[in-house]
Amino acid sequence: MTDTIIKIDLNQSAYDNDSVHNRWHPDIPMVSTVKPGDDFIIECYDWTGGQIKNNDNAEDIRDVDLTQVHFLSGPVAIDGAQPGDLLEVDILDIGTFAEQQWGFNGFFSKKNGGGFLTDRFPEAQKSIWDFNGIYTKSRHVPGVEFAGILHPGLIGCLPSRDMLDTWNQREKELFDTNPDREPALACLPYADTAHMGRMQGDAKAAAAAEGARTVPPREHGGNCDIKDLTRGAKIYFPVYVDGAGLSVGDLHFSQGDGEITFCGAIEMAGWIHLRVNLIKDGMSKYQVKNPIFKPSPLVPKYDDYLIFEGISVDDTGKQHYLDTSLAYQQACMNAINYLTKFGYSEAQGYAIIGCAPIQGHISGVVDIPNSCATLWLPTDIFEFDIKPSADGPVKHLDGSVNIPKAADLD
Amino acid sequence: MTDTIIKIDLNQSAYDNDSVHNRWHPDIPMVSTVKPGDDFIIECYDWTGGQIKNNDNAEDIRDVDLTQVHFLSGPVAIDGAQPGDLLEVDILDIGTFAEQQWGFNGFFSKKNGGGFLTDRFPEAQKSIWDFNGIYTKSRHVPGVEFAGILHPGLIGCLPSRDMLDTWNQREKELFDTNPDREPALACLPYADTAHMGRMQGDAKAAAAAEGARTVPPREHGGNCDIKDLTRGAKIYFPVYVDGAGLSVGDLHFSQGDGEITFCGAIEMAGWIHLRVNLIKDGMSKYQVKNPIFKPSPLVPKYDDYLIFEGISVDDTGKQHYLDTSLAYQQACMNAINYLTKFGYSEAQGYAIIGCAPIQGHISGVVDIPNSCATLWLPTDIFEFDIKPSADGPVKHLDGSVNIPKAADLD
Amino acid sequence: MTDTIIKIDLNQSAYDNDSVHNRWHPDIPMVSTVKPGDDFIIECYDWTGGQIKNNDNAEDIRDVDLTQVHFLSGPVAIDGAQPGDLLEVDILDIGTFAEQQWGFNGFFSKKNGGGFLTDRFPEAQKSIWDFNGIYTKSRHVPGVEFAGILHPGLIGCLPSRDMLDTWNQREKELFDTNPDREPALACLPYADTAHMGRMQGDAKAAAAAEGARTVPPREHGGNCDIKDLTRGAKIYFPVYVDGAGLSVGDLHFSQGDGEITFCGAIEMAGWIHLRVNLIKDGMSKYQVKNPIFKPSPLVPKYDDYLIFEGISVDDTGKQHYLDTSLAYQQACMNAINYLTKFGYSEAQGYAIIGCAPIQGHISGVVDIPNSCATLWLPTDIFEFDIKPSADGPVKHLDGSVNIPKAADLD
Amino acid sequence: MTDTIIKIDLNQSAYDNDSVHNRWHPDIPMVSTVKPGDDFIIECYDWTGGQIKNNDNAEDIRDVDLTQVHFLSGPVAIDGAQPGDLLEVDILDIGTFAEQQWGFNGFFSKKNGGGFLTDRFPEAQKSIWDFNGIYTKSRHVPGVEFAGILHPGLIGCLPSRDMLDTWNQREKELFDTNPDREPALACLPYADTAHMGRMQGDAKAAAAAEGARTVPPREHGGNCDIKDLTRGAKIYFPVYVDGAGLSVGDLHFSQGDGEITFCGAIEMAGWIHLRVNLIKDGMSKYQVKNPIFKPSPLVPKYDDYLIFEGISVDDTGKQHYLDTSLAYQQACMNAINYLTKFGYSEAQGYAIIGCAPIQGHISGVVDIPNSCATLWLPTDIFEFDIKPSADGPVKHLDGSVNIPKAADLD
Repeated sequence: MTDTIIKIDLNQSAYDNDSVHNRWHPDIPMVSTVKPGDDFIIECYDWTGGQIKNNDNAEDIRDVDLTQVHFLSGPVAIDGAQPGDLLEVDILDIGTFAEQQWGFNGFFSKKNGGGFLTDRFPEAQKSIWDFNGIYTKSRHVPGVEFAGILHPGLIGCLPSRDMLDTWNQREKELFDTNPDREPALACLPYADTAHMGRMQGDAKAAAAAEGARTVPPREHGGNCDIKDLTRGAKIYFPVYVDGAGLSVGDLHFSQGDGEITFCGAIEMAGWIHLRVNLIKDGMSKYQVKNPIFKPSPLVPKYDDYLIFEGISVDDTGKQHYLDTSLAYQQACMNAINYLTKFGYSEAQGYAIIGCAPIQGHISGVVDIPNSCATLWLPTDIFEFDIKPSADGPVKHLDGSVNIPKAADLD
Repeated sequence: MTDTIIKIDLNQSAYDNDSVHNRWHPDIPMVSTVKPGDDFIIECYDWTGGQIKNNDNAEDIRDVDLTQVHFLSGPVAIDGAQPGDLLEVDILDIGTFAEQQWGFNGFFSKKNGGGFLTDRFPEAQKSIWDFNGIYTKSRHVPGVEFAGILHPGLIGCLPSRDMLDTWNQREKELFDTNPDREPALACLPYADTAHMGRMQGDAKAAAAAEGARTVPPREHGGNCDIKDLTRGAKIYFPVYVDGAGLSVGDLHFSQGDGEITFCGAIEMAGWIHLRVNLIKDGMSKYQVKNPIFKPSPLVPKYDDYLIFEGISVDDTGKQHYLDTSLAYQQACMNAINYLTKFGYSEAQGYAIIGCAPIQGHISGVVDIPNSCATLWLPTDIFEFDIKPSADGPVKHLDGSVNIPKAADLD
Repeated sequence: MTDTIIKIDLNQSAYDNDSVHNRWHPDIPMVSTVKPGDDFIIECYDWTGGQIKNNDNAEDIRDVDLTQVHFLSGPVAIDGAQPGDLLEVDILDIGTFAEQQWGFNGFFSKKNGGGFLTDRFPEAQKSIWDFNGIYTKSRHVPGVEFAGILHPGLIGCLPSRDMLDTWNQREKELFDTNPDREPALACLPYADTAHMGRMQGDAKAAAAAEGARTVPPREHGGNCDIKDLTRGAKIYFPVYVDGAGLSVGDLHFSQGDGEITFCGAIEMAGWIHLRVNLIKDGMSKYQVKNPIFKPSPLVPKYDDYLIFEGISVDDTGKQHYLDTSLAYQQACMNAINYLTKFGYSEAQGYAIIGCAPIQGHISGVVDIPNSCATLWLPTDIFEFDIKPSADGPVKHLDGSVNIPKAADLD
Repeated sequence: MTDTIIKIDLNQSAYDNDSVHNRWHPDIPMVSTVKPGDDFIIECYDWTGGQIKNNDNAEDIRDVDLTQVHFLSGPVAIDGAQPGDLLEVDILDIGTFAEQQWGFNGFFSKKNGGGFLTDRFPEAQKSIWDFNGIYTKSRHVPGVEFAGILHPGLIGCLPSRDMLDTWNQREKELFDTNPDREPALACLPYADTAHMGRMQGDAKAAAAAEGARTVPPREHGGNCDIKDLTRGAKIYFPVYVDGAGLSVGDLHFSQGDGEITFCGAIEMAGWIHLRVNLIKDGMSKYQVKNPIFKPSPLVPKYDDYLIFEGISVDDTGKQHYLDTSLAYQQACMNAINYLTKFGYSEAQGYAIIGCAPIQGHISGVVDIPNSCATLWLPTDIFEFDIKPSADGPVKHLDGSVNIPKAADLD
């Protein structure tokens, strides 16, 4: 029976679990040690540490404290790992807890985090997704069911001191170009809500003041939110400190490319089963800066798609220069508009392309001045036919069900 | 036997073929008329109209006249098509000419067009790819062979007058923000090299002066360079003028997502077999702004990948805000660096990810301040194993072969 | 939390669990009742009820009592199900027990059950396969690891009295054509080891004497051993008795088409999560005699194959007439012979094609007098390259490890 | 431009083309010589040599002279090939003739060849399939269109003298067990209609009297009718004579596993583009008896299936022992019965599963006494939804169109 080296209690605050942390810092103490070739299980809180409940009220999404995220389990030391190595991680499996067979998707308020389409969806909304074995569906989004592509949104090794300094410096420089912007340009260190694992006293206070926030993906991987890091995938992580210090969290039951709603996957608590090995000096052998990975042989096959194009002209008609994010936003909006013709609300359309295993492709990035991005919407996840026809669309939903919304408090 | 409604002669200048044009304008006369349900064949020049030769000298790439591109075959009128309709186009097949079993890939000089990684590859380079049935390989890029995913880089219907005006206005506004930039921010109308099909005299001159350049993708589709519009795909195009006016060109034998080298596919002359139908009033029925499409059942299956991540921090270490193009550039460079460890030159690596059926995914776009993009490199296209291992990479190429380069004329 | 409606105890004899049975009979009492739309979990013994142990000795395979198999969990009544309906069963998930992370594959002795290639492998052999999340590998078969395609080997509804009589009659007629054959032509009712669930006394004795053995697949499905009935699949079962009476067992972690070693999958104890619905009068509506099913979206993708052909000429050179089983035997032997060139023993080769997700295709069945069958061996499950090359094969295994064998007694 | 080394003229009798033959014999003279590494094109008659016409009358199917088949193009000598080598053949492409954009599928009369379900379909019937680029559909089978999986039904190298003798002897022995059977148990040599290529005079007469018929697949491959030998596949053929002597013919536009209607594919004339290489002494290096192959990366993806099971109990209710052919027949009939519920005639159902890219899997071959075979019917080839539902099937076809039939002449 495989060892569970980190356990959590869903009824206990994540702050009270000293095998958990929510900042990146080289000095966070290891909580367990394993050897190359070992496999082991790690339990994880959902990324918010339990702030979001299974109900029909979006106020918890509106009021979420984003300075607390993400609660990660770890760091785990790997015997013999040294800076410059590649840590090979096999994701052997990922699962849910029997007592918590649901996850959540949210749109954050524009005033508290926002999201990819925050101008169109400025207020907090929440949908709850029930798990039925490999499948999920939501009482807030009728007519759609799909197999999950379970993955950790966030996984990576501890940064070195130099790397931490680099991160903090470059992000601060960006932040300072527009410090009053909402949402902010970057999330800077914030000691008040830092959970530094087993650090104590002054050392903890010092580290909390400079610990990098977990929000962005960085050289070590981190919060990449890549749906394809699913069970069965093999990842090669750069190692920056002795022992590597692998941490993981932010498990998702499913997600589309881009994790566009920000709270964008179907977020869940659960466990992950890993196996680790080392490629000594692998970073220079293969000239690796960011993680590389091999996809899993066990991925939900939804390969009949309807594909939406978007170009980098914004809603006001203004031309932008090769802005691929904008092109993808336009493709997302085209897909949402299309889905409304079958009876979905715009918010339901947004939730679908955030949660379902859609693909987002960078289709053209050189044909000045327009980038072209495509959103691949799988058609087999719907209970009805969504393909175009000469007869026009049929409204399958009567609008009686929608996604709960919570108005901003002024 | 299916009718070939537009023929070309590879030994004749594209300017002398009046079923060809290289600008978008609502007044370009239709050159053929078909009915809904018809299928027909159209022959196409390569996008440059034959400027590039099958040799080992990149001067033609350096000296290419980009004001001439793209030479499109059409426009074809569809009986009964009216503004607001959707034109359903089945790409039944695409083929090469028996007498021209090769295509080219180029990196343009930074002074003449550039490309996605033009700062790293500022000078003109060219590789020639031979076709062997469904496969292609290049004498300039040893060790790699793959099945083509043939597609038109450019296809769409004529714009209306209003749409043309919108295009010209918004692109001019962008251009004017930095008119001296090299490469330019946008390609504005340019009458000298305009080919307006069968237009004559003053009408032609007037249209040439305002005809939109074919470079960017726009609402009508156009130069989307989406590799997935391959034979077997079905596309729904917005119609803006009576008769629709479908034009097509810029055929590719293969291409990766992004068409990153700009002359980025394996460019070829050839023919395309199409079938058309109409969804009357389909634009409002389905709220369609840009084309939508269904992928083909006949796509080369290369689904064992090695996947490279990139984030939006540039080579100088500067942090950018959710810049997905930059993230994808970084992923591209990570892939190129990796390939050099097996003996490829950087230019060969660049050509491979430009030509082979790689995927470019928008993996994370909300985790401020970093976008995360992934480049999916198929491993089965290589004659040797490129996966990481504890033993480290093996150099399979000795560097004796490289991609011809032509130095800029100062 | 989903209800587990049938529980088992691995430390208790299957005979002592009255929610289990090992014969088919219309009078076996239902052990639980569910409603259309319900989902529920059922625990299952391995098919032998625990006769096989995790060790390196094949005597338990040699001495297995095949009159006891298969131990099925059920029958479950579905409210409202009537003869003539179709019972729609979604396999929502299948899992292993945390305390039993292994399964077994066996070749039975030719004197006790035999197998598809029993003339070549006449003595009992056993390999143990360890589960590592979604993957499995065996200490007895080095160099191969693959993701499981978990499925129930045996699932279906209770037969009616008429159907039971039909089964018994036709199988007895076949048996009587050669009653002394070894292995037998058919497994006839056998009361001594019958487990009739909750039946008692005379009723039990009478039913045990005529209860159909569970070995063959029949009209109701039953022991189909179809690897594609994996988690995520949807099956439509004919209903023959009021309440349907769904039973399930013989869970497999993985198996190739044909289940050729007879004890042919990686056999395991575990649980299965099901959801049921009804299509009233579906048998006549769709003219259904045997079950039909839709495959799962979540199937291990091993689609780089080496494919072996076989024709219906036997090892002595004798020509048989369109004998597809023989053609497939020949394809199997060709694959085994091929694998020996890389260092595998013949028994290891046999175990691999029995356990791994190989495909067996009926490729030609009309070209008299030879049937042609093909065995599709996935190449990505091996740690080394098994494709042919001009250099010839490399022996990766030194023969020091083999599959335990138990010689027949006298 | 690739050389076409064998040309045909559709208006000329195949007997008048001396680069064609219709028997296997070691002495048939080579018609062309190529070197390892070469690629070349070979043109092929349809298998009947043009006996079947594009019309709505099945008399040509009824009256076909099956002693003439198959007309093969070749043999081609490969420089340096010797007995014991493996000939590696890449199928680079396969195509149709522009002037013959159609193929045929037939059910032969039970009195003249028959087919897999000849007892249910005893009389001659014919459907014509039009080619539209990569797609095909038939005026005799409405509501279905699919992408072709083009392949040679028949390809292989010349047998040695010993192998020829073996073939003739074993097939004669089988034939003699029931010489009056209709259809015959085997097709024995038949000189009258033999086409021995460039052989002349007495040598020709002697060879014609003993030349093996081309109907069955044998050790060299031959008439395997494996749909997966499509363009892009790589095959390793055993070599038995100096120069190998590769011949090919019987091109198919599409076919299901089993080629069940016997004239069972969509039969066509066309061309095939091949590349050859040698693995010296490959037969013993890899212990190869029959050809082995790697599938193509370019295969039509129809992977949403409805799957039908069959077991080895015949229509009279008689139990057979592990008869996989019978199990597949039952699965075929179950699929045909199902399709009739949507309005298809039984003959149309039979044609669909013969022509479309269905899969036939050997699902269980050890569960005595029943074999279990499955037929995988792709659902996406139909214009309407054929999946089961609680509402029952909808008749989409009104029965006004059927497949032409020609009654047997008494």
